[in-house]
Amino acid sequence: MRFVDVIEAKAEGNELSTQDIEAMITDYVAGKIPDYQMSAMCMAILQKGMNARESTDLTLAMMRSGDVVDLSDLPGVKLDKHSTGGVGDTTTLVVGPLVAACGGTVAKMSGRGLGHTGGTIDKLEAIPGTNVSLPIEQFKSIVRANGLAVTGQTGNLVPADKKMYALRDVTATIRSIPLIASSIMSKKLASGADAIVLDVKTGTGAFMRTKEEAFELARLMVDIGTLAGRKVRAVVTDMNQPLGTAVGNALEVEEAVALLSGQLEEQDPLYEVCMILGSSMLELAGLAETEADARAKLREAIVTGAGLEKLRAMISLQGGDASFLSIEGMKRLTAVKRHAFVLAEKCGYVTSMNAEGIGTAAQLLGAGRATKEDTIDPAVGLVMKVRCGAKVEAGDVLADLYVNDDRYLQDSINLLTASIHISEELTELAPMIYGVVS
Amino acid sequence: MRFVDVIEAKAEGNELSTQDIEAMITDYVAGKIPDYQMSAMCMAILQKGMNARESTDLTLAMMRSGDVVDLSDLPGVKLDKHSTGGVGDTTTLVVGPLVAACGGTVAKMSGRGLGHTGGTIDKLEAIPGTNVSLPIEQFKSIVRANGLAVTGQTGNLVPADKKMYALRDVTATIRSIPLIASSIMSKKLASGADAIVLDVKTGTGAFMRTKEEAFELARLMVDIGTLAGRKVRAVVTDMNQPLGTAVGNALEVEEAVALLSGQLEEQDPLYEVCMILGSSMLELAGLAETEADARAKLREAIVTGAGLEKLRAMISLQGGDASFLSIEGMKRLTAVKRHAFVLAEKCGYVTSMNAEGIGTAAQLLGAGRATKEDTIDPAVGLVMKVRCGAKVEAGDVLADLYVNDDRYLQDSINLLTASIHISEELTELAPMIYGVVS
Repeated sequence: MRFVDVIEAKAEGNELSTQDIEAMITDYVAGKIPDYQMSAMCMAILQKGMNARESTDLTLAMMRSGDVVDLSDLPGVKLDKHSTGGVGDTTTLVVGPLVAACGGTVAKMSGRGLGHTGGTIDKLEAIPGTNVSLPIEQFKSIVRANGLAVTGQTGNLVPADKKMYALRDVTATIRSIPLIASSIMSKKLASGADAIVLDVKTGTGAFMRTKEEAFELARLMVDIGTLAGRKVRAVVTDMNQPLGTAVGNALEVEEAVALLSGQLEEQDPLYEVCMILGSSMLELAGLAETEADARAKLREAIVTGAGLEKLRAMISLQGGDASFLSIEGMKRLTAVKRHAFVLAEKCGYVTSMNAEGIGTAAQLLGAGRATKEDTIDPAVGLVMKVRCGAKVEAGDVLADLYVNDDRYLQDSINLLTASIHISEELTELAPMIYGVVS
Repeated sequence: MRFVDVIEAKAEGNELSTQDIEAMITDYVAGKIPDYQMSAMCMAILQKGMNARESTDLTLAMMRSGDVVDLSDLPGVKLDKHSTGGVGDTTTLVVGPLVAACGGTVAKMSGRGLGHTGGTIDKLEAIPGTNVSLPIEQFKSIVRANGLAVTGQTGNLVPADKKMYALRDVTATIRSIPLIASSIMSKKLASGADAIVLDVKTGTGAFMRTKEEAFELARLMVDIGTLAGRKVRAVVTDMNQPLGTAVGNALEVEEAVALLSGQLEEQDPLYEVCMILGSSMLELAGLAETEADARAKLREAIVTGAGLEKLRAMISLQGGDASFLSIEGMKRLTAVKRHAFVLAEKCGYVTSMNAEGIGTAAQLLGAGRATKEDTIDPAVGLVMKVRCGAKVEAGDVLADLYVNDDRYLQDSINLLTASIHISEELTELAPMIYGVVS
């Protein structure tokens, strides 16, 4: 079948065959299908969708376009987690160590932050000396020794996704749920895990703006993973405000260390999301019978400090200086030239936040990148002093800014002020967890 | 606005501004918008549509991408007609001369045939010596002297359409009604006519397979032309069988000459469609008060031979040998090495035809082109001996094939046989004219 006929079939809303989808990816990566045909196909998929079978075929074809990591010689169920990206979301640095401390095998490949969202690799690089570009055998040997390692994606993982994402970015075809799902899942499957827990975020700081879209994406990713023979569970969580209070690289590591040191309350949103993700991982790995059982194990790894020890061991094994990984140690990494504060302009209740605005405010201080070429300052960022629902008086501190470079400070303050909404009446608050898809 | 945002707006079903549409065409023709973005936009338009205002803006922007012919110094209302393309459709060579004989000013730019459809320029070239690449001043001087000239489109008429059509052809975005309408109307408007009659064909030999699509296209083209300040009327006509009996270049000129010589019956479909197109042109030009008045004038131009004289004068003025333009003269141009016949295999009624198949059968004999580079043999083609509704006996001649080259003769016979359907029961026949849109 000529590719133009395959495009037409999708444009008319028909289901594509496994063979046509495989040929599409093989030929596109080989340069036999030009960009102008692929972009028309992506737009047809955006408009007409793809079912779970087509999405799985697409995911597997993309996965096979590059290296596929083989973790089968590691013991036990190899676990991975993925977040669709948010603000103040440092769950990997909490959940990974806790699950490893409970006997899990966590072999995780992570990415960098872009735009208003952060990335685990950037956070790890805030700890001096840490190597996040581990050769695959070294990565596996650390996982074998420690039960936990986190590294950046290898150069040739899913080249089809790199090529397609760059094209989708300039052709307004990013927001297709089957294309998002296959982009994420192809990388997860290529990374070699047996069981995957997905954190699908929804809200003002998330890519999925509505709860309905988030559940649709969660459902499709679970279906793809299951059809591909993996154990998958997805949790749909709120991103209408930063998840943790810290937004910035060392600041987020500091908050993770505080959580692992038992300094956070159980009702803290970051704590709660880490518990549901971690307990899901333990259940999928067969390391806990029930959610209650799993949560008890995770809590114990906090109380005993076993989780923090796992993180320290990982950093050491990856060449980093683990002496920073304490409440005191982290203060040295978050030391900045000056602080600035955003104050409440009136009294009332914090009814909502624009989490994307808050993430961008941290990026303006140097905590994130506008383009892939930008460099980041690991120390800078901001710490939120209020959450939605808080009662504030005029003059109360809403956010504490960690500043080394004043250049965009006023822009950052203005954006933060505009991103935190104070009203006279308290409105209903969004839940932290919307649901679980499995 | 960045073009990716314009694509996104259309992908979400929003209306595009005049400014965005103009910039799209200007930048695409200038090479500032790459093909991969334009193909995504074409797919978004195919899926989400464009209203009359957007389609008019697109048409005008495309029109302005190249030369715009100025006919304003010619006297009277400048008339044009256009057919969306069919099989055995030789109306231009009948209607043009008749309308000119009735006092109309017909300045027509025509195209060549491709695939199963014929083109007026190819038919004119069947008459030895005829120049169909007239410089614009010569074209206008022939119109001024004779009231009628037909030439090919100048090289730089709507370059945006050439570039977009080539892209749409390989990205499955041909079948978008706003894109079809703007492609046709941009060329009509650039050709400079004040009043345009459109023949929108529907059926097995037409681009618009359903009546509903044909009316949608007709409505949109009339709206575009009206918003652009022209007088426009569209007639939706049947293409479930060849319009005339002749399919082939000289053969179709021969049929036009026969009609202009009074040799065809009034109930003949070609005669009927020529009457409705011609009377519409006379009405739009203010040369007839009513349709009945217009039809009477056209009939008189047949009876007196004034129409045939106009065609002869045009051919002479365009350098051709008008001595061929008689029943006897045309026989010399349709002389071939041999004839072959397609016979009825059983008795019954001709209930339907695949007009595209019949057009392709003529193409296989050398009457048309599969690709733009193919050459054609003006003498060859076929003459249908039956129409839908005809009662036939086994062995009756269904079609008379005019053959110079045997290479694909058997393919042509097989295709013709498969394209003429004979059943025991007579079914309801399609009407010739479905309606008029103005």
